[in-house]
Amino acid sequence: MNKRMVVALGGNALGNDPTQQLQLVKKTASTIVDLIEEGYEVVVGHGNGPQVGMVNLAFEAAKKYTDNTPEMPFPECVAMTQGYIGYHLQQSIECELRKRDLKKPVVTVITQVEVKRNDSAFQTPTKPIGSYYDKTEAERIAKETDFVFAEEAGKGYRRVVASPLPVKIIELETVEKLVSEGCVVITVGGGGIPVIKKGDSYQGVDAVIDKDRVCAKLALDLKADLLVILTTVDKVSVNYRKPDQKDLDEMNVSEAEQYLREGQFAKGSMLPKVESCLEFVKNSEGKALITSLQKAKKALQGKTGTVIHK
Amino acid sequence: MNKRMVVALGGNALGNDPTQQLQLVKKTASTIVDLIEEGYEVVVGHGNGPQVGMVNLAFEAAKKYTDNTPEMPFPECVAMTQGYIGYHLQQSIECELRKRDLKKPVVTVITQVEVKRNDSAFQTPTKPIGSYYDKTEAERIAKETDFVFAEEAGKGYRRVVASPLPVKIIELETVEKLVSEGCVVITVGGGGIPVIKKGDSYQGVDAVIDKDRVCAKLALDLKADLLVILTTVDKVSVNYRKPDQKDLDEMNVSEAEQYLREGQFAKGSMLPKVESCLEFVKNSEGKALITSLQKAKKALQGKTGTVIHK
Repeated sequence: MNKRMVVALGGNALGNDPTQQLQLVKKTASTIVDLIEEGYEVVVGHGNGPQVGMVNLAFEAAKKYTDNTPEMPFPECVAMTQGYIGYHLQQSIECELRKRDLKKPVVTVITQVEVKRNDSAFQTPTKPIGSYYDKTEAERIAKETDFVFAEEAGKGYRRVVASPLPVKIIELETVEKLVSEGCVVITVGGGGIPVIKKGDSYQGVDAVIDKDRVCAKLALDLKADLLVILTTVDKVSVNYRKPDQKDLDEMNVSEAEQYLREGQFAKGSMLPKVESCLEFVKNSEGKALITSLQKAKKALQGKTGTVIHK
Repeated sequence: MNKRMVVALGGNALGNDPTQQLQLVKKTASTIVDLIEEGYEVVVGHGNGPQVGMVNLAFEAAKKYTDNTPEMPFPECVAMTQGYIGYHLQQSIECELRKRDLKKPVVTVITQVEVKRNDSAFQTPTKPIGSYYDKTEAERIAKETDFVFAEEAGKGYRRVVASPLPVKIIELETVEKLVSEGCVVITVGGGGIPVIKKGDSYQGVDAVIDKDRVCAKLALDLKADLLVILTTVDKVSVNYRKPDQKDLDEMNVSEAEQYLREGQFAKGSMLPKVESCLEFVKNSEGKALITSLQKAKKALQGKTGTVIHK
């Protein structure tokens, strides 16, 4: 039986411009197919921070300046990014597979993820999306919309929305079926379309589910052997950017928890990645790996990256 | 073994406004589940004329009026509509199934459809998308973009793009797998993301594939028993809107071909529907049915609608 892997791709690695993105995903596709060649069933989750912000702002602008653009609710914006990012990924992965004479169907599954209305995250929006603005511009937009903005040190202001915890991946059964039958599945794009239960139905809600947390949930639900979180650095570091910075080859659960207590990892950056890996490792027989897209194959061979294990 | 059905939904039935659409698709979902209860494996294809036009124009406007909206190419716009229309359909169908105590996974598959670069359709764009404009407005937009507009008698001007024939449904194998295992599959949204073959890869192209034609191809490829095209009228008519209008209960291939020769069916409206049904019926053991969304269940029971058969 094949080993099974969930890969979480950063939305930042996809670029803000769809034309540029289509070029960037070719590198991503090459890495994904490397991982498939290492003997894994690969399930791909991806972020959409820059993209969903761009889509959302584009519709806001179009609505403002034209007569016939309707309101595009936030969950629909997430669904839109799942559509076009998934299209790019599946087209590029299919192409890379064909180049290497591998035959595997690649499929993007539009995926809803349930969150709870009483999740405390809805009280304090924290998830940055969209472009950076200067203070004046951010204040102007905040005034014209119901957007909340937060400052990112040295970078400017970005919109923040609630980031509730994923409770249930609605299309899990289908994803499981497809993976078991040898498909490369692209799912939980942008963390999934956030929905809350309402009577017999689900209903979209303005929120962004952290893609690393939902990929950890997906890895647990699919009984994956490995959760791989791809980011911009090759390894996780402690004392990051200090004279005594230490790049980690591995950490076990208690070491990781000690680092968390020390506040070693940046909020909205390395923190959710390490927490997601811990969530997976503590509740499964699997391991987790944090590394860069460029070094993924080497990391899988044990040559770089940070492994989180029991 | 279950009978298998491909249902083609009109994009016009979905509405232009996503908030309104989410309400409208509840009725659609109810009809789809009626058809499932009649004992069919149901595969849903849908149009996206109003939606893709709206998305495309929103991005054009946002690009014009803001600094940071990138170009959103047309195939990506189609992918976006597959994402959010699929999300609405799957959420509503899942809800309707749950209400009736039926358990079936519902899944939207992002779907590319190959067309040929040398298809003559690229020389003469004919497919209307987006909103209606008056002449002045259409001329203004045409001047500012590379859009081509065409007049629709009594309604105004709409953008037209090429409508090439579908050659291959790229994700067919996955769709087939999912249908065979009991999933309700939503696919070929908006006629599919139009792509052309280029070396090892496929590449998106500005075009709209007619959703009825691609649903006929899908029905053939899936060896469906029935192709159902849902539209705004209960039956196909000859001498339409003339004193001797005749609503048809059925037509065989040679009758249908005779009507086509007489020019009985309107271009861009009933014509591609009848032609698509003929394409399916002539090349399979199946039948085709044209009726309204409202009457679909009754039509399936033989009480209304127009059946096209060998």
